[in-house]
Amino acid sequence: MEKSQNGEENAQLNLSNDGSICGYDSLHHLLKDNLKPHHFQEVNRLLTGLNCGKVLETITLPESATSLSVKHGFDAQAFSFRADKELLREPRVVRVGLIQNSIAIPTTAHFVDQKKALFEKLRPIIDAAGSSGVNILCLQEAWMMPFAFCTREKKWCEFAEPADGESTKFLQSFAKKYNMVIISPILERDVNHGEVMWNTAVVIGNHGNIIGIHRKNHIPRVGDFNESTYYMEGNTGHPVFETEFGKIAINICYGRHHPLNWLAFGLNGAEIVFNPAATVGELSEPMWPIEARNAAIANSYFVASINRVGTETFPNPFTSGDGKPAHADFGHFYGSSYISAPDASCTPSLSRNRDGLLVTDMDLNLCRQYKDKWGFRMTARYELYVETLAQYVKPEFEPQVIRDPLLHKRC
Amino acid sequence: MEKSQNGEENAQLNLSNDGSICGYDSLHHLLKDNLKPHHFQEVNRLLTGLNCGKVLETITLPESATSLSVKHGFDAQAFSFRADKELLREPRVVRVGLIQNSIAIPTTAHFVDQKKALFEKLRPIIDAAGSSGVNILCLQEAWMMPFAFCTREKKWCEFAEPADGESTKFLQSFAKKYNMVIISPILERDVNHGEVMWNTAVVIGNHGNIIGIHRKNHIPRVGDFNESTYYMEGNTGHPVFETEFGKIAINICYGRHHPLNWLAFGLNGAEIVFNPAATVGELSEPMWPIEARNAAIANSYFVASINRVGTETFPNPFTSGDGKPAHADFGHFYGSSYISAPDASCTPSLSRNRDGLLVTDMDLNLCRQYKDKWGFRMTARYELYVETLAQYVKPEFEPQVIRDPLLHKRC
Repeated sequence: MEKSQNGEENAQLNLSNDGSICGYDSLHHLLKDNLKPHHFQEVNRLLTGLNCGKVLETITLPESATSLSVKHGFDAQAFSFRADKELLREPRVVRVGLIQNSIAIPTTAHFVDQKKALFEKLRPIIDAAGSSGVNILCLQEAWMMPFAFCTREKKWCEFAEPADGESTKFLQSFAKKYNMVIISPILERDVNHGEVMWNTAVVIGNHGNIIGIHRKNHIPRVGDFNESTYYMEGNTGHPVFETEFGKIAINICYGRHHPLNWLAFGLNGAEIVFNPAATVGELSEPMWPIEARNAAIANSYFVASINRVGTETFPNPFTSGDGKPAHADFGHFYGSSYISAPDASCTPSLSRNRDGLLVTDMDLNLCRQYKDKWGFRMTARYELYVETLAQYVKPEFEPQVIRDPLLHKRC
Repeated sequence: MEKSQNGEENAQLNLSNDGSICGYDSLHHLLKDNLKPHHFQEVNRLLTGLNCGKVLETITLPESATSLSVKHGFDAQAFSFRADKELLREPRVVRVGLIQNSIAIPTTAHFVDQKKALFEKLRPIIDAAGSSGVNILCLQEAWMMPFAFCTREKKWCEFAEPADGESTKFLQSFAKKYNMVIISPILERDVNHGEVMWNTAVVIGNHGNIIGIHRKNHIPRVGDFNESTYYMEGNTGHPVFETEFGKIAINICYGRHHPLNWLAFGLNGAEIVFNPAATVGELSEPMWPIEARNAAIANSYFVASINRVGTETFPNPFTSGDGKPAHADFGHFYGSSYISAPDASCTPSLSRNRDGLLVTDMDLNLCRQYKDKWGFRMTARYELYVETLAQYVKPEFEPQVIRDPLLHKRC
């Protein structure tokens, strides 16, 4: 599955404007291609938790999938996490697919054409997932449009659709054809409630039916992510969707910075939490390998992280609230989609630069095995925190501070 | 400050029993010594958030400190985080010191001698911290004894002391001498409450006074960490200690796996949270670079992580609940103490194998700057989670589950 860079390619690495090198595919390849094998093995153990005790196996995808990846130029990687065998439960192995992609045609094109081009771009990647036997597939955040919220222009609202709109219909046929649950993160227009918009994930069942929706709980106001210009905090709580293949939830994008959001999906019984996102290098790249893995460890579930790829340029320049000149893009979406397991291990990431399909087998029994092992839920003292939070939200809350009595008076 | 391994040393790296290589100092050195500089720069950017925009400077420690480190054979490293200049507040730069160390003499020695030997071992490292101008110093968990809780033998309880006992008195003189706040994690015996024990951090003010104590909130029952055999969950809440040099809190060891614990210290206003710990490779090493950094990011404060170093062998073999034969140690404490910043950057870690002193300057203004930038506190929707948790703790709680109506009936 893995396509290794060779030495020649590495020798051609160039420095980009911000001093970082470009031209490499992923952290995993950068390390694997440039360290001696025994050094790489130890670095990989420290970084991903994979050593002799925990193994991440590579899966060979069917020829039908790999030929699509070659023909359409997308990265395709596949891995398998292990769990211990149990005496009373059979293994519950689920095959999960994640798709990351750049937009298909310029943002200056007619909106109808842009959406249609995205459909056409995704078709072979979804076919590759389906023919690989993927059980649950998740697309990236607002996959049916460019991530135009940086512009603050209201014209992009025209991309919004009802939960049962054309993007959902497009995916329903694949869900049915491949017996595959599909999570479809869209810009939703709620026609029954004043036509307001939401950042929404539609969960399509493996029979093509809509199981339900979840709306993004936490909305960013940072950098170019002016999303609260378009939609507000979600009103759907923290639903867990019980599907044919396991209990899943969706933590959309900025919600990954909120440990309580991750926690609530766990309390409702999620075994896999998907994090479809759109995030750029300068802002968040060092956080990307941290937050999802922390959530998987703390909540004893799998986390599937998806990020867009590429740079999206918009017709009209905009400013970013940083005093710098107006510009027409807000940076490089660095892809790097990956999966984190409750045992603190993780897969390598997809490319930082190319479209990609990541296929991963996971035995959901691993979740309870790690609950039993580490006991985080048992030792969490939730009663204590109900009280702490209840006090905190009162306007008259006073923090628990013990002041050094010998402290000089300061303002 | 940094002592680099040379190629010859690397060539001598050996494989240990578990297949990992040994003989290297830290992940940072393994990468820096074996990657080309431009590759290392990019790997370091992805892993630590340090690039052209964010710089971690190296500090030169005074000769008095470095000569102590050479004479007594401990690692000494020093770094400085940057923050933006503000118009209305002066920088609030605090110098923080962390000490990691192995035990001093065999666990078969008389308990009085063991404790005395630890005092003598720590004396030059504390002197090095003091003469380096450290403002706040933190020692490792239960520093005044071997980490004997794996044995389940009650005789080790004799190491316990009142909060104002001999270990505190030993440190009070240093606090006064060097005008330095010292956090002293000990095994505490509460003589006024039935002589029970606690895992406690004593906070000693820079005038040598005891400001207060905090007792470990979450107690592990995992692997060899049979700590609930000795002490229960702490009863001191989540205090923040307002010291001469900033608002600090202590999240002891296993509490780092609990996002709500980190959160509560943040809600009470902590600017630096210390995580004195004792943890071994097989169990937790891949989690070590994740959880503290996630806490620093999510709560917009600095986190100072300290782990013991070395292998501690006990007189009587014990079993580990894993079906394996009895043995006399429970693995290698991998050191790797480090500091995480709210901007997602972090220092390199101290050695995996040697005693060490990590000195780090941090401008506490960075905390509020990152609260303002990312807005995690503002967008956290605590009211929602008060309700979620209040429901969850009820015995009759029902998870929010949306079941696929087409789902085949399963047990």
